[in-house]
Amino acid sequence: MFDHRKYRAFTPVRLTDRTWPDQQITQAPLWCSVDLRDGNQALINPMNVEQKTRMFTLLVKLGFKEIEVGFPSASQPDFDFVRKLIEENLIPDDVTIQILTQAREDLIARSYEALKDVKRAIVHVYNSTSTVQREQVFGLDRDGIKSIAVQGARWVREYATRYPQTDWAFQYSPESFTGTELDYAVEVCDAVIAEWQPEQGRRVIINLPATVEMSTPNVFADQIEYFCRHLAQRDQVIISLHTHNDRGCGVAAAELGVMAGADRIEGTLLGNGERTGNMDIVTMGMNLYSQGIDPKLDFSNIKEIISVVEYCTELPVAARHPWAGELVYTAFSGSHQDAIRKSINYHEQHQLPHWEVAYLPIDPRDIGREYEAVVRINSQSGKGGVALVLERDYGVELPKWMHGEISRVVQKASEQTGAEITSLQIKSLFDEHFHAAVPGWTLLGYDLHTTQGIVKGSFNVDGQQPAFEGQGSGAVEALVQALEKRFGVSIEVTQFDERALTQGTHALAQACVALKVSGHSYAAVTSAEDTSAATLQAVLSAFARSPVASGCLKQASGI
Amino acid sequence: MFDHRKYRAFTPVRLTDRTWPDQQITQAPLWCSVDLRDGNQALINPMNVEQKTRMFTLLVKLGFKEIEVGFPSASQPDFDFVRKLIEENLIPDDVTIQILTQAREDLIARSYEALKDVKRAIVHVYNSTSTVQREQVFGLDRDGIKSIAVQGARWVREYATRYPQTDWAFQYSPESFTGTELDYAVEVCDAVIAEWQPEQGRRVIINLPATVEMSTPNVFADQIEYFCRHLAQRDQVIISLHTHNDRGCGVAAAELGVMAGADRIEGTLLGNGERTGNMDIVTMGMNLYSQGIDPKLDFSNIKEIISVVEYCTELPVAARHPWAGELVYTAFSGSHQDAIRKSINYHEQHQLPHWEVAYLPIDPRDIGREYEAVVRINSQSGKGGVALVLERDYGVELPKWMHGEISRVVQKASEQTGAEITSLQIKSLFDEHFHAAVPGWTLLGYDLHTTQGIVKGSFNVDGQQPAFEGQGSGAVEALVQALEKRFGVSIEVTQFDERALTQGTHALAQACVALKVSGHSYAAVTSAEDTSAATLQAVLSAFARSPVASGCLKQASGI
Repeated sequence: MFDHRKYRAFTPVRLTDRTWPDQQITQAPLWCSVDLRDGNQALINPMNVEQKTRMFTLLVKLGFKEIEVGFPSASQPDFDFVRKLIEENLIPDDVTIQILTQAREDLIARSYEALKDVKRAIVHVYNSTSTVQREQVFGLDRDGIKSIAVQGARWVREYATRYPQTDWAFQYSPESFTGTELDYAVEVCDAVIAEWQPEQGRRVIINLPATVEMSTPNVFADQIEYFCRHLAQRDQVIISLHTHNDRGCGVAAAELGVMAGADRIEGTLLGNGERTGNMDIVTMGMNLYSQGIDPKLDFSNIKEIISVVEYCTELPVAARHPWAGELVYTAFSGSHQDAIRKSINYHEQHQLPHWEVAYLPIDPRDIGREYEAVVRINSQSGKGGVALVLERDYGVELPKWMHGEISRVVQKASEQTGAEITSLQIKSLFDEHFHAAVPGWTLLGYDLHTTQGIVKGSFNVDGQQPAFEGQGSGAVEALVQALEKRFGVSIEVTQFDERALTQGTHALAQACVALKVSGHSYAAVTSAEDTSAATLQAVLSAFARSPVASGCLKQASGI
Repeated sequence: MFDHRKYRAFTPVRLTDRTWPDQQITQAPLWCSVDLRDGNQALINPMNVEQKTRMFTLLVKLGFKEIEVGFPSASQPDFDFVRKLIEENLIPDDVTIQILTQAREDLIARSYEALKDVKRAIVHVYNSTSTVQREQVFGLDRDGIKSIAVQGARWVREYATRYPQTDWAFQYSPESFTGTELDYAVEVCDAVIAEWQPEQGRRVIINLPATVEMSTPNVFADQIEYFCRHLAQRDQVIISLHTHNDRGCGVAAAELGVMAGADRIEGTLLGNGERTGNMDIVTMGMNLYSQGIDPKLDFSNIKEIISVVEYCTELPVAARHPWAGELVYTAFSGSHQDAIRKSINYHEQHQLPHWEVAYLPIDPRDIGREYEAVVRINSQSGKGGVALVLERDYGVELPKWMHGEISRVVQKASEQTGAEITSLQIKSLFDEHFHAAVPGWTLLGYDLHTTQGIVKGSFNVDGQQPAFEGQGSGAVEALVQALEKRFGVSIEVTQFDERALTQGTHALAQACVALKVSGHSYAAVTSAEDTSAATLQAVLSAFARSPVASGCLKQASGI
């Protein structure tokens, strides 16, 4: 059954003098939404009037100026919706609606009935032109199929004259264009254009559908460049593209197609449409935006877009959908999290004029998403991510050596549950392991006397009577010596950092200390107004976490 | 907030003498699955051991020969899983596992510990090389970053010598390659390759990640062609690509990248991975398949692939996901359905050697999907779809003029409910409106006498006594005249078709008749062993559906 020999390779254009790969897109194309037509016709349950109205309202709000609203000659609900838009005056002055029709007189006549009294509209007529459709579906030769197109164009023009109060534009699609011989596609479109006479001022759109995506997107671009070069009246018409996503490259095809000369793009919000969907205008628009190009559509409220699309299509937006998915501004990997944290800090410090943050192609806040979602912690996350969560959510800034300490604790907790760790759990783990006071180890007061470079200290600790007494070249050393004497162990201060948490005379200081007690490491973080007290308390808290200290506590309570 | 001026356009390569747009892919690249590494690290809940084992088993079954199984130096669960694969002998002889590590000695040492006693493995070392990462994250210049790569490569080589029983291959990724100056990327990779000496027979892979997708896919292809052309020992190494989908073009980038010279593709099943995901190997593989190229991976059971991926990632596969989604072999639009039906029939009649069916890029049965799902009927569907459902699901083949009749009834029902119509509902509507016997209108027997070209008929109908009697140039005309006389109306036979349903002497015949009774149309379909009886019954059944007949019936029952 799974036998590739059943299929043949697509024959490319071989346009060796192509120019599109040297082009860059520098402005947004004209957009036309087909959510209410191609999108709607591909739904398990087509939209009802309320859903259609919500979709139309959203499209207008986002800034679409051309909206295909249905296939009124084929569907009574579509007909009724077009009438509703016109009769209830729901179409803004700067928006043009478009309807689709086959190239049959009865359907064209019915389409004009649907559009009666509209101020401005695009009548979009199509017929299939591909080899497969000619041979297998219509049983007609090239001339026969061309006649259908030309006759359809003629009816479209003739019926338009019956409704002179409307400003009509015409659009023609050689449906299944990607499967049509290029010279023939040009021939058919030239004949249609001749029928419509755009040189007389009529707005004419030629829309080239990748009804089914049949090749790599560069081949599609070659097709578009060939078509644009060979069309007789290229300058008189707008070239529009309508790509589908069968090979997962619908957006790429549209982008390369614009580089190849197209002016206009038909697509849908988040890619709803037949089979794999139409090309996604949100993705293409955001791609432009992220390159500093005004997309001419407002995606600032992506949550609203998702919400309306899900309501109207009854299909969920995937978690990894480009720009919009729930997970696309989330970094789980530790190295990514670390880089994002450093990159954001760098931007703030250097006030960079342009956004260039590692792993975040745009600032999620631009479209109403939050940094909050950027970092989630699981067993695969590194120290940078945990540190970012503490800094971002709780304002706890830690020295770099502490990142590894807290990360180890978090990673272990995550490995035990196998699940994601929340921001709150990280804060709890931090408090429990490094920050919380240890009962019996609160510094109540201290006396320090310095003579000839020697500090003698007495440290009054709640729960540890009598006071600790020791000496050394500094206060910390004196306390360490006192602890060593009392507990008969060797203690080494391996890390020490202190910083001001606030400004002014009564500023809080935060001290971070790591000790090695009998070869094992213990760390603690404390804060106090007195910088000396903060440091000494950190030493006591770190020591209190060693088994030596807790063993002592047990003895004490055993008395 | 939504301000495109925050961003800058990506600066392309400007490789004006590029050759890739003239290439076509003619064979599958080497594939490497990163589902268990890049995929796994991007999950809300990383896979547990059972999930990882199921994923690994599936990847082997599909035919992957290289599988990145984790980042064992950064994650204890990954370490344990690698040990499990090795110690439980779960790696087939023709499959090579790969692990990822940063370019740090402790992590490299730990990675080799994880791989102890494996027969064959790829050690994949990376460091970030992009401008943004150098400046903002590492605070190092070009030489500093290159030193990290070279030193990492050296450690990889040196630690490998401690495990001579394993057949080692080495892989290096200049992470964030797409954001790295090309000449510098070449310089770093040349230095790494020099360290590994592939000319001595060592298998060396250079993997170029689009860690974040930053440009249109043609620009990525230019980058790859530039890189391949400028690498000192191009012929000695395998060039691998690892694309992500931030701009929705991850598959396009990989395809154009292969045309530009790459040999190998890293990706995941159905595109799981950081943010918008890794490039989807199922899509790229099926793209090849649909062009007659052996993908060297077996996607014949797509349902199993979806099921395992959903189980392991805890994320659903989208309904419109290329090749795999629930809706991608479904056509809702009437014209599509009609074309598919004709195209499939044409294939059968002409026994075409290659699959070229309109709107169906492949035969869904190749991957275990069914035609059953191809057509769903809603108010947007045309007559072709309804006819296809009757033919496919119930073997009811109807003449073309009947398609419109049944379709009108179905469309009306659908518009009333606003929802999809099931296949069973279509059959019910067909039976009710065209096929069911009408009480009081069953032909019990007939007598036909022919003289001089005139047929005189007597028709004994259950419920319509006395027998109908009439004459004409044929049996149908005689019955029609009899009905006209009895009911005082004019009847015109507008359509008539009859065909054998089965073969042989006792073959069933199916007759389809449309009548115009007082200007309104009525149609009926009946079957009988006797071809004459079938036709006459069809006329009676069609007539029985007119108000004239049912009015008569009411009178009769009123007696």
